Amino acid sequence: MGYRVAVVGATGAVGREILKTLHEREFPVDDIVALASPRSTGREVSFGDRTLKVQNLETFDFTGWDVGLFSPGASVSAIHGPRAAKAGCIVIDNTSQFRMEPDVPLVVPEVNPNDLKKAKRGIIANPNCSTIQMVVALKPLHDLFTLKRVIVATYQAVAGAGTDGMHELEQQTKGTFVGDPPVIEQFQKQIAFNCIPQIDRFMDDGATKEEWKMAVETKKILDPDVSVIATCVRVPVFIGHSEAIVAEFEEPVDLARAREALREAEGVVLLDKHEDGGYVTPIECVGEDATYVSRLRLDPTVPNGLAFWCVSDNLRKGAALNAVQIAETMIALDLLPKRH
Amino acid sequence: MGYRVAVVGATGAVGREILKTLHEREFPVDDIVALASPRSTGREVSFGDRTLKVQNLETFDFTGWDVGLFSPGASVSAIHGPRAAKAGCIVIDNTSQFRMEPDVPLVVPEVNPNDLKKAKRGIIANPNCSTIQMVVALKPLHDLFTLKRVIVATYQAVAGAGTDGMHELEQQTKGTFVGDPPVIEQFQKQIAFNCIPQIDRFMDDGATKEEWKMAVETKKILDPDVSVIATCVRVPVFIGHSEAIVAEFEEPVDLARAREALREAEGVVLLDKHEDGGYVTPIECVGEDATYVSRLRLDPTVPNGLAFWCVSDNLRKGAALNAVQIAETMIALDLLPKRH
Repeated sequence: MGYRVAVVGATGAVGREILKTLHEREFPVDDIVALASPRSTGREVSFGDRTLKVQNLETFDFTGWDVGLFSPGASVSAIHGPRAAKAGCIVIDNTSQFRMEPDVPLVVPEVNPNDLKKAKRGIIANPNCSTIQMVVALKPLHDLFTLKRVIVATYQAVAGAGTDGMHELEQQTKGTFVGDPPVIEQFQKQIAFNCIPQIDRFMDDGATKEEWKMAVETKKILDPDVSVIATCVRVPVFIGHSEAIVAEFEEPVDLARAREALREAEGVVLLDKHEDGGYVTPIECVGEDATYVSRLRLDPTVPNGLAFWCVSDNLRKGAALNAVQIAETMIALDLLPKRH
Repeated sequence: MGYRVAVVGATGAVGREILKTLHEREFPVDDIVALASPRSTGREVSFGDRTLKVQNLETFDFTGWDVGLFSPGASVSAIHGPRAAKAGCIVIDNTSQFRMEPDVPLVVPEVNPNDLKKAKRGIIANPNCSTIQMVVALKPLHDLFTLKRVIVATYQAVAGAGTDGMHELEQQTKGTFVGDPPVIEQFQKQIAFNCIPQIDRFMDDGATKEEWKMAVETKKILDPDVSVIATCVRVPVFIGHSEAIVAEFEEPVDLARAREALREAEGVVLLDKHEDGGYVTPIECVGEDATYVSRLRLDPTVPNGLAFWCVSDNLRKGAALNAVQIAETMIALDLLPKRH
């Protein structure tokens, strides 16, 4: 009746969220296996009421498994993603490893589901968290007014750096109150009570790789004619990415039509009252599936401009949920054959 | 030899910083008085080694005082600013009360010092903190390439809401670790481990008043032909505002010339290495006078675009320091007559 599902990187923040999401959404699971690197082998993770003992990814045989949801490091996916795909297991990879490869679809189901049909190598890439929520919010506006350019500044949670990132924010915050010097490992500078304008490494043009990802991934998912200039900033928030977005369109923007389209768009919740507190903040979106749009207003500094605030749970829609939705959409499109 | 100086709102975060700044910069003080509302009368504040007993603003006679540095609430300045000015005391007001009045100069000394000559009413306004650091950074670039449009997203510290704002972040943060529900008074939602896309009240067009201030104040200080679209966000940082700025110019932008101009600009420090940690974060700017520019790069999505990251201590350059610099500049321009 169901599928044989492998969750790779099962002990990480995203891996645990994938197991939770599969269970919550009642994904048709016949058999499930939790995989991780040798150092995590033998640890236990939850899947609904069940406890799964983590198995060793390196020696695991993917033959007979239908779908693998991968969220280890990019270098691990580079080795084991193609190995699983070669064994006939469809790989949905959450790392940056395959995203920009031309024969690997990069998919947000609300935006470009039909790209799943082009998965020639048996690998589908899950976009970067900050890209996903932005394209979900922009898609209905693009359909109406034809998007040209996006200027985005992000406010990204430490959960983007996994459980270690969350631990670092907690430890540094506690340390501040007792005068302990901050221990800096996951981020480039102290993150407690601070903002760090660097996510991922620097590129040659002075942008960071996270900023580059937002630009190139948006082109691949939404439209190659859309250009994006991003400034990506880590903020002392545990979970939930926020984005201040200014969008410029080809055609005249009608605010009422924009609101209507966002209200009806799949995956979007428009929560936008022009009064104290009439918007969504990151702590309010934790554990939620939607991409929230608030602070929608005309940008009076260009002919066809819109500005808005966009918030989503970066572990859910930004990672685990989108990956599971890809698998669900493949079933709906009859693209996920059973191997057993 | 010196001046008789009144500091109004002396018990607030900015008032204390003004006293500290006057002392540190060896402002020529003959006599100094600390003033505040009746409920703070009798409290003590420091001025160098001296302790000043706070006097009652409401009954204070400004006759014979040369300059008043005001940072109470806007409604208090509305009453006592004009009263002091009428008594011959030059008022440098840090509130929003007089900023947009046409016969009140709005001044950042590095940008438009000569506007001080137009202070017909004896009142000069200190701009909003988030505007000050932005125009200091933009001025040398505007001189080179002629600025047209600015897209800015802010990351504003809780000190912008005074000592009460700082206390609220501290209490909510501590409460998080022991499971106390957050007490919300200064901000619209929980600020600990969160971001709030609202500073000041909402305007009719869906922008907040803080966003409106950045637009109209920039026009008044820098150039009426410059348009600004801002998204102003409160972040869980104690002191130090950050801004992600994208600027569009009339003329072709040369990155090397931009760097050179920023390096030489008064009040600006360019600290910009394209490597891990090669930029300034808000906790690093606390107690510093400069506006720091980092992450300078071309914006490839428009013909003449530049993007950068800008950080400054919002209590220093964003408030106290700029006010004291206005007084210093008035002395240099022979605009501050002694009344005693």
